[in-house]
Amino acid sequence: MIFENQKKILSLFLYSIFKLIINSDMDINKLAVGVDIGGTNTIFGLVDRDGNLYGEGSILTCKHGSNLGMYLEDLANGIKSLIESIEDKEIVGIGIGAPNANYYTGTINKSANLPWKEPVYLQKELMQRLGMPAIITNDANAAAIGEMIYGGARGMRDFIVITLGTGLGSGIVVNGELVYGHDGFAGELGHVVVTENGRECGCGRLGCLETYASATGIKRTVFKLMADSIHNSSFKDNSFNNLTAKMITDAVNEQDPLAIEAYRYTGEILGKALANAVTVTSPEAIFLFGGLAKAGPYIFEPTQKSMEENMLFSFKNKIKLLPSQIHDKNAAVLGASALAWQEYEKKI
Amino acid sequence: MIFENQKKILSLFLYSIFKLIINSDMDINKLAVGVDIGGTNTIFGLVDRDGNLYGEGSILTCKHGSNLGMYLEDLANGIKSLIESIEDKEIVGIGIGAPNANYYTGTINKSANLPWKEPVYLQKELMQRLGMPAIITNDANAAAIGEMIYGGARGMRDFIVITLGTGLGSGIVVNGELVYGHDGFAGELGHVVVTENGRECGCGRLGCLETYASATGIKRTVFKLMADSIHNSSFKDNSFNNLTAKMITDAVNEQDPLAIEAYRYTGEILGKALANAVTVTSPEAIFLFGGLAKAGPYIFEPTQKSMEENMLFSFKNKIKLLPSQIHDKNAAVLGASALAWQEYEKKI
Repeated sequence: MIFENQKKILSLFLYSIFKLIINSDMDINKLAVGVDIGGTNTIFGLVDRDGNLYGEGSILTCKHGSNLGMYLEDLANGIKSLIESIEDKEIVGIGIGAPNANYYTGTINKSANLPWKEPVYLQKELMQRLGMPAIITNDANAAAIGEMIYGGARGMRDFIVITLGTGLGSGIVVNGELVYGHDGFAGELGHVVVTENGRECGCGRLGCLETYASATGIKRTVFKLMADSIHNSSFKDNSFNNLTAKMITDAVNEQDPLAIEAYRYTGEILGKALANAVTVTSPEAIFLFGGLAKAGPYIFEPTQKSMEENMLFSFKNKIKLLPSQIHDKNAAVLGASALAWQEYEKKI
Repeated sequence: MIFENQKKILSLFLYSIFKLIINSDMDINKLAVGVDIGGTNTIFGLVDRDGNLYGEGSILTCKHGSNLGMYLEDLANGIKSLIESIEDKEIVGIGIGAPNANYYTGTINKSANLPWKEPVYLQKELMQRLGMPAIITNDANAAAIGEMIYGGARGMRDFIVITLGTGLGSGIVVNGELVYGHDGFAGELGHVVVTENGRECGCGRLGCLETYASATGIKRTVFKLMADSIHNSSFKDNSFNNLTAKMITDAVNEQDPLAIEAYRYTGEILGKALANAVTVTSPEAIFLFGGLAKAGPYIFEPTQKSMEENMLFSFKNKIKLLPSQIHDKNAAVLGASALAWQEYEKKI
């Protein structure tokens, strides 16, 4: 036992020296590059460790069609110019968030919303072109890391971020680490089947969560309600293609009864799915991020109610349901930059 | 950049010295104690790093009714005698698997199958009585760690173990670490709701997975089939209380048509639930452990078929469904001992 204690003391001593050496240059002004690749725009920015944005830029993702080389050239030049515009800083690395991006392979795989048809080795390409570490993950994972580094999940080791965008994405953190799974594709809560023989999903199956709880899902719900009920609503003058989730969120804030019911139904299904998800990883909190979360109580109250009603007793009244604390209009850039911070801090 | 490299080399050097010091006594004959607390018996054994059992013992869990002090006395004495019976060894610690056990608090919470009504601080009690590190977790988590340390999951960082016993338990490993969740209660796949308004569950809700996929679940299915179908079967002479899952497994191996259909139905529901679970953690493999897994192809084939049919495209044909490789009759003791090995190795 004495020998064990001596070993512990010696190892603690060595570890302290090691941390001292590593942290000796912590006072240099360090920034991370965050890149958010969307179907229309690719936005990038420089972000400090507290989540402050030090300038940003953007390019059109589809400007050169499927010509990847020209896109990469534009992107690398854009980031270079941005870095050059800021003085007295050290760049710790580049974090990239993109649909269908894989952390392990460093690639963006074929995505319906991006112009490139083959897997894109984006991590490697940017590292080569910019000579600094780069790391890539999907948008929802980037949002989760953003929440952990800058947002409401600081200090939490187990939580889930649900991104309610065109689809439903999820970033799941367990033991302080993002869950990538054995192949980098974990965290697809949008494709948990919530209704037997339910709505058709783009993935080819029926009843996936994102066919209900997402911008597209709530729009489908509005149309279902117009078919099933006699709620009065401003939506009755809109075509399916013209209606947007933002219009539904605006309407709910004006007490449109059909919009209120659409949000209630969305929350009911989302809450049920979250109650099931909780049994897997038992998170301290679940954060809702993205457009639909902006409906405030109209989405949070029915989701919370349904989640608690469907929760296994051992989790009841224990899991917080919270709005994301990443409010910046460039939340996705912040999330991506957080990824670079996380990788940087793993090394020190 | 050069400064970064120097730091890396120095830290690697310090780390190597640290590991050398720590590992200098690795050649002593080390054993871990594994304790499996069940409703009837508490079994304990000494297990080496390769999963070989060096002797075992047992006491009756309910011998002293709800008198916890006398139970702990029996248990500590039993373990002491067992340790004293083996020469030339060092004990690395005690791992305990028990229903409703919590890794974080070191307690067994109230469990329907155990005689103590208040939370039992078992970790602390055994540490004090035996003067060595002790660690506790629930049975399914212990099974998962057993699979990782001695079984088919060696070298895997992401996998799930499903224990098909009286209920359905699950141990989920992510990034090489067991998922305990923020409160120690993660991994309750048995209580994922799989059927809207489905079977009544002991937890008070409807349609939980374990009401279908477990020893009790398949028995309920046999009775459903006797009600719904005209399958011929030996079960028609059994009362509900007399029928056991083992009888169903014996019957399926004798081609009883109702038993085959009961296993097919169990596999269909289990496979669907596993397809959903995969979207959360994307495991490399799922292991089935416990009585029902002994039906071999009768459970594996329908489960695999249903899992693949219901799987999101990105996971199709990628997740292995495997029988547990912990075959010893004392699998639960091995699992519990693996927990002690894992904790020990975290420290070195």
